[in-house]
Amino acid sequence: MAIYLLNDYGAAAHPAVISAITDLGDREYAGYGMDELSAEAASTIKGLTGRPDADVHFLIGGTGANLTALAAFLRSTEAVISPSEGHINVHESGAIEASGHKILTVPTVNGKAAAADVREMAKLHTDEHTVIPRLVFISQSTEYGTVYTLDELRGFREVCDELGLYFYLDGARLGYAIAAEPEASFKAIAELTDAFYIGGTKNGLLMGEAMVISNDALKKGFRNSMKQRGSLLAKGFLIGAQFSAILKDGLYIGLADHANKMANLLTSELKAIGVEFALDGMTNQIFPVVPTAVKDRLEMDILLIHWGKYAEGLETLRLTTTWQTTEETVAAVVDIFKAALG
Amino acid sequence: MAIYLLNDYGAAAHPAVISAITDLGDREYAGYGMDELSAEAASTIKGLTGRPDADVHFLIGGTGANLTALAAFLRSTEAVISPSEGHINVHESGAIEASGHKILTVPTVNGKAAAADVREMAKLHTDEHTVIPRLVFISQSTEYGTVYTLDELRGFREVCDELGLYFYLDGARLGYAIAAEPEASFKAIAELTDAFYIGGTKNGLLMGEAMVISNDALKKGFRNSMKQRGSLLAKGFLIGAQFSAILKDGLYIGLADHANKMANLLTSELKAIGVEFALDGMTNQIFPVVPTAVKDRLEMDILLIHWGKYAEGLETLRLTTTWQTTEETVAAVVDIFKAALG
Amino acid sequence: MAIYLLNDYGAAAHPAVISAITDLGDREYAGYGMDELSAEAASTIKGLTGRPDADVHFLIGGTGANLTALAAFLRSTEAVISPSEGHINVHESGAIEASGHKILTVPTVNGKAAAADVREMAKLHTDEHTVIPRLVFISQSTEYGTVYTLDELRGFREVCDELGLYFYLDGARLGYAIAAEPEASFKAIAELTDAFYIGGTKNGLLMGEAMVISNDALKKGFRNSMKQRGSLLAKGFLIGAQFSAILKDGLYIGLADHANKMANLLTSELKAIGVEFALDGMTNQIFPVVPTAVKDRLEMDILLIHWGKYAEGLETLRLTTTWQTTEETVAAVVDIFKAALG
Amino acid sequence: MAIYLLNDYGAAAHPAVISAITDLGDREYAGYGMDELSAEAASTIKGLTGRPDADVHFLIGGTGANLTALAAFLRSTEAVISPSEGHINVHESGAIEASGHKILTVPTVNGKAAAADVREMAKLHTDEHTVIPRLVFISQSTEYGTVYTLDELRGFREVCDELGLYFYLDGARLGYAIAAEPEASFKAIAELTDAFYIGGTKNGLLMGEAMVISNDALKKGFRNSMKQRGSLLAKGFLIGAQFSAILKDGLYIGLADHANKMANLLTSELKAIGVEFALDGMTNQIFPVVPTAVKDRLEMDILLIHWGKYAEGLETLRLTTTWQTTEETVAAVVDIFKAALG
Repeated sequence: MAIYLLNDYGAAAHPAVISAITDLGDREYAGYGMDELSAEAASTIKGLTGRPDADVHFLIGGTGANLTALAAFLRSTEAVISPSEGHINVHESGAIEASGHKILTVPTVNGKAAAADVREMAKLHTDEHTVIPRLVFISQSTEYGTVYTLDELRGFREVCDELGLYFYLDGARLGYAIAAEPEASFKAIAELTDAFYIGGTKNGLLMGEAMVISNDALKKGFRNSMKQRGSLLAKGFLIGAQFSAILKDGLYIGLADHANKMANLLTSELKAIGVEFALDGMTNQIFPVVPTAVKDRLEMDILLIHWGKYAEGLETLRLTTTWQTTEETVAAVVDIFKAALG
Repeated sequence: MAIYLLNDYGAAAHPAVISAITDLGDREYAGYGMDELSAEAASTIKGLTGRPDADVHFLIGGTGANLTALAAFLRSTEAVISPSEGHINVHESGAIEASGHKILTVPTVNGKAAAADVREMAKLHTDEHTVIPRLVFISQSTEYGTVYTLDELRGFREVCDELGLYFYLDGARLGYAIAAEPEASFKAIAELTDAFYIGGTKNGLLMGEAMVISNDALKKGFRNSMKQRGSLLAKGFLIGAQFSAILKDGLYIGLADHANKMANLLTSELKAIGVEFALDGMTNQIFPVVPTAVKDRLEMDILLIHWGKYAEGLETLRLTTTWQTTEETVAAVVDIFKAALG
Repeated sequence: MAIYLLNDYGAAAHPAVISAITDLGDREYAGYGMDELSAEAASTIKGLTGRPDADVHFLIGGTGANLTALAAFLRSTEAVISPSEGHINVHESGAIEASGHKILTVPTVNGKAAAADVREMAKLHTDEHTVIPRLVFISQSTEYGTVYTLDELRGFREVCDELGLYFYLDGARLGYAIAAEPEASFKAIAELTDAFYIGGTKNGLLMGEAMVISNDALKKGFRNSMKQRGSLLAKGFLIGAQFSAILKDGLYIGLADHANKMANLLTSELKAIGVEFALDGMTNQIFPVVPTAVKDRLEMDILLIHWGKYAEGLETLRLTTTWQTTEETVAAVVDIFKAALG
Repeated sequence: MAIYLLNDYGAAAHPAVISAITDLGDREYAGYGMDELSAEAASTIKGLTGRPDADVHFLIGGTGANLTALAAFLRSTEAVISPSEGHINVHESGAIEASGHKILTVPTVNGKAAAADVREMAKLHTDEHTVIPRLVFISQSTEYGTVYTLDELRGFREVCDELGLYFYLDGARLGYAIAAEPEASFKAIAELTDAFYIGGTKNGLLMGEAMVISNDALKKGFRNSMKQRGSLLAKGFLIGAQFSAILKDGLYIGLADHANKMANLLTSELKAIGVEFALDGMTNQIFPVVPTAVKDRLEMDILLIHWGKYAEGLETLRLTTTWQTTEETVAAVVDIFKAALG
């Protein structure tokens, strides 16, 4: 059977999360996230982020989280500034535009945007013939597995303060980022952003994302927006229970850290046999470059993503590790590469 | 501890559904509902509905299902005709309007609208100063636990054919309706509507609703609409697995039938001790009427919904049974009523 | 040729307005309303309304004015409370919903809503399953030619203050209202509302409506909203020039007052010959009731609106006077009624 | 007084258009464009375009025309492909996104996009995580005064046919384009596009744009969309009268041709004194390049647009001619350049 390095949401959930679900038994819970399990998870998150004053909400998936938040935060003439490869710009089927808001894009290097480009883009929009830039969107880690440093995050905050913008962070893969760059911690991110979410789906949960809103101006009516956008799960306690489980004993960061380590190990072993990489990542997504024929052979034994053409005759691949990836997996993948490379 | 008759989504899921989740183990599945479990569930549904040609999609919750469908089906100037008490009109926080569509309402009796009123409402809208009525929305069973008969459903179909409208049915509680009114079967509903959904959340699933689209004109681009509206679960196999489990051996209708029977039993026993009802339901929601002071006493021992004032000094309550309700529950509730009524 | 009492926007414009256009000559003006003529008209309006601090914007038509304002003022989960017969609810082809907002309706008597009903409707919306009522919409004069008294307007203001709602007034026919009820003056309305517009199209202009925004919280980004909604005329000076002309020497109220007088004269003369009226108006729209056969005869000689069935065999008509209606017109209409009534 | 070359919508209207307005006198006309003058203008346009089967509608302004059309034509998951510098993408304050649709951009050379890039962009969007490209938007002439040749227009049509896209043309400055490139005639454009509009505002009208819809699938409900988007002028006969006047005796193309000739004359005379141009236009917008200090001097005597920095120390200017520009204007401008260049 092929080895699964396709993505980090292929399996149901970590055993601790499954236990949290089965432990629910036949008891009834308050609906729509008003239950004690959600309250407990929210309390844990307020502790982790050092923001007892934050509002914490549990949403179902990443696209829903982004569209619920941005629709709630923005007025009709206001726009988002996003990296050109930001998830909202390319992989959410126009969800932000469907809620009425233009996305202005800034260029990226290895998936990361620069604060200076955000400033320049915002400053281009000065009259009533254009939209009003109002919110900066980034993903941490990015869609390329790269991670913004604490200094880079501070750079975005400064631009936002300077120009009156909100700073919003899509943390679908936040665990991987914090494991790789511990300085850019939950606390630091909660301090620097106006709102962000802690992704569950891509790090061991069945589903669920935890939105943390620090800016008071963005708190009002958020649950109405959740309901309006289909993001308010009737059995919200399911998400509360899962987050309570995964946030216990450092499990959330621990799982991500393991995945990162497996990705790093795989990277170094592949480099040792001469494989080049399209970019240097630090988290659970890695991007080896191989000749086209090698790609074809690899795809027979490894489930991966063909990311695109790297150069004439060369292909970029994406391999993704998870909490399930083992050293044995890594060794097997290296063997497959060796065989494919001839 | 108080007896839970608050709603039909208070507990996690039926044991067979929980087993379906735990049976997933650590295996990986294709994402976004492209997995074999979802395919199997879709195939079962095509069989049940007698529509091998239908498109079946698995969505997460009721509000998301309705807004995804209506946003996909309607053009920007087109409107929905809904019973005034339809879920989309009063309990979805303006989700349909947020996707750009006006809801025109027709009056109800016990939660049910009449085809004649739909015809009249549609015919009022004839020029460019008004919206273009294009889709008829009903819930089966209704928000009042009542059920449209097969003849009534045919009446809506006739009006829709006559006026070029789509007929869409919200089946959040469809199991309860079919158990109560078997003539209005999956097959009949699939034949009479252009699209409808089979509700999972309110009948034993953790979450999940199965959309069945019979009308070819409504099929194209539906998965894009799901993604755009946050209704495409990354781990869609979770919903596929649950539906596969609940649709096995008639469990879905069986659970609903049990809940209906408990509701009927409770109704007859309460009537026997002199309790009156605001309306005669057939499904798992019942609406006893009691003096205000009695309501207060009941609420100490039963979790229920205070539906509103019935008349001076009299209150309507809503009690909801589920697959978990037992004859012992019913007996205990009757005892509590007796005590409260003095 | 039939006498024209169909509506108040059948003719191009008052001669003073036409002169204002021809006087523009071949000179160039700043675009998008940034010209000196618009500035002059805005200054006049600030004087008339006693609000030197207001923002005044010139928009093209009534539907555009309403949708531009409400889209600018409301967040995505916020809703409008409107009389059931409010123009935005029945005659703007779902423009408000198309911009994402639900309209909650309150009942009317002769086209007028009651503040108490607004309060009750707002108070029904308390949880996240519903929209958040945020703005009260009324028309002055109403779609039935009736006029809210100063006390009634104060009643709406009180409810709005009590519940944190904006109060918005559609003044498509504001001139007629002020002429009929001078106490509810420009100044009073500017003081009581958060925003309102002074209608030009229906009182002597080619086109144009003047939005007056008193509430500072609603001012920001309004020109962006105008551009976004297609309400920012490239040659905005055309509207500025027209308002400058019509607001000179009391012409705006004078024209409306004349129309009201003609309507009152016609009403009293028709009453004198035994015609009954569906309601007692004070402005330029009147609603006589006649037998069906009489209606058919009248329609051969008078262009009017058949408003609907009044009772079995009786029809309500709408006759609208304008600044062009003369005493001769009135006399001729009375003769036609006499002949038709036999 | 400074010479006005700022844009082509600075003056009220051509005398023939003003006469058409004053000729309306005090007569009443049917509302909302259902009048005989609009019918006459529509009939003329059907003749000019060789499309007796087309639907012709009169809208107020360019942004309104674009948003009304695209909102009417597209379903909620469908997107527009536009040149990156297309008017809808940069100068309409997010109007298209506010109606729910993403704009995908392709690169431009001198404001013109290439059909091959449209094909490539469309083909990138193949799964449900992306929007569905559905309509190609171009402007003729472009925002840079350049004109697509008949062959280029055919290229877009081919891509559209190949991929099932609509082809929509924004003709805000269509007169200038046809005057410059007569082969790409009204008839050719009506044959190649699914819908386009003939711009009035920027070529001699007070306001008004004539939408021509050839594709039957796009005709239904268009007037509702006009009303919903605030684009249905109550006194629609004002636009009908203006188009009737400007389309008489070839005046519409004649005015544009004159403006083009003045632009060409100015270009050749400026080139003769050594001025370089950022691009070679053919219509009424020209883009000379001058040192920064020269720009500052020119701006004292000419109203023009500073288009941006051309290179270090060099600025691109935009000068726009109109039907009002004379040979004397050209000579005066040349003198001012000579003096400024020293």
